[in-house]
Amino acid sequence: MLADEVKALTFDVFGTVVDYRSTIIYEGEQLSQQKGLKVDWDAFAYAWRNRYNPFIQRVEQHELPWMKLDTLHRLALEEVLAEFKLTNLTEEEKVHLNRVWHRLQPWPDSVEGLTRLRQKFVLATLSNGNVALLTNMAKYSGLPWDCILSAELVRAYKPNPAVYQMAIELLDLPAEQIMLVAAHPYDLQAAQSHGFKTAFIPRPLEYGPRHVLELTPDPSFDLVANDMLDLARQLVF
Amino acid sequence: MLADEVKALTFDVFGTVVDYRSTIIYEGEQLSQQKGLKVDWDAFAYAWRNRYNPFIQRVEQHELPWMKLDTLHRLALEEVLAEFKLTNLTEEEKVHLNRVWHRLQPWPDSVEGLTRLRQKFVLATLSNGNVALLTNMAKYSGLPWDCILSAELVRAYKPNPAVYQMAIELLDLPAEQIMLVAAHPYDLQAAQSHGFKTAFIPRPLEYGPRHVLELTPDPSFDLVANDMLDLARQLVF
Repeated sequence: MLADEVKALTFDVFGTVVDYRSTIIYEGEQLSQQKGLKVDWDAFAYAWRNRYNPFIQRVEQHELPWMKLDTLHRLALEEVLAEFKLTNLTEEEKVHLNRVWHRLQPWPDSVEGLTRLRQKFVLATLSNGNVALLTNMAKYSGLPWDCILSAELVRAYKPNPAVYQMAIELLDLPAEQIMLVAAHPYDLQAAQSHGFKTAFIPRPLEYGPRHVLELTPDPSFDLVANDMLDLARQLVF
Repeated sequence: MLADEVKALTFDVFGTVVDYRSTIIYEGEQLSQQKGLKVDWDAFAYAWRNRYNPFIQRVEQHELPWMKLDTLHRLALEEVLAEFKLTNLTEEEKVHLNRVWHRLQPWPDSVEGLTRLRQKFVLATLSNGNVALLTNMAKYSGLPWDCILSAELVRAYKPNPAVYQMAIELLDLPAEQIMLVAAHPYDLQAAQSHGFKTAFIPRPLEYGPRHVLELTPDPSFDLVANDMLDLARQLVF
């Protein structure tokens, strides 16, 4: 049975475990109040996140040297601040805003679901977030990881094969005893090509109600779950 | 003040946080009962651990290729089994015995002390144990790490400078905001040379009552604590 074969669950984090969009909007609104700004923070969050893939691809294609995701977030933030004509933030305010990625709030089902899953499995992140970002976020939001695995450890970004191979090597398990849990089919497909088991958790509201995602599970995924609680029901109880 | 300057505490694990000797003796006695063996497990534990440094030095001097600590433990175990004339263990029993390092029990003060320290600091291992070993041990023994950092991440062994530099890079903090907590002066001195703060927790019974250690703290260490609870008293309350 699947649940007995698998020993470790690895998790995509942004979008799968945490709701970056709502957190950015929430902290943005606070900044608006403090500074008397008028900003559509929903659009701001969308614009910021939309620069994520292009920046990662520039690193993966060696147009940019490898740098931590914190640094890529900051480069993207500068572009988005210019786009939204937010020119009067101090350096300290920009540093704080960029660190919002260290303070992302979990989806409502994440902490309880992970806590249940942890009774049976080793739980590790497998994220493009850098180690400090993932560690701080876990502490801030109460995410009960056993181990922080980050693409930073191989100075690459998912779906680079080195990232999945790193997880196999460090968890010291055969790939078929490791499951990737993710909201993004491309990530699951890459993990699958390295022999991982796969669990798809669609998060149709990752980009918010203005950009609802239509997500059709690839029939080759081992599991599809509505959320982390449903995943725990399928794997633990 | 020291406690406000430091953001992350890193920990040596074997001997500092966990009592490998007692755990090996305990599991050894169980094996003796099952198999009807007569073994001085105290001497066995001492002999096994005494092969640790020579093996690590052979790797660091490139006489052996880099390999996980699990593998070095197994090579050492084969030698100790021969020395103690324990020739009738099955492969499965040897694998299980070698994995005792994944099941090491904490010193009585460790879990409560770490739990208190965790309220204020990021807690990370900084150990020669491989990632899977440290992750499994934490899960088994309830050690509340925020992050597993291992010498395996740079395929080197402490006191190789790469290990301390890795912690600085991954925690993304200036060295002076990181403290190493260890029972071994050589480890603290190495960390200090990279700019870490240092806390010495002498564990005079690491090798047991037959080999009580005389430990004189280097006056350059920032803190000396009797145990983890004392460290928490000095740093948190």
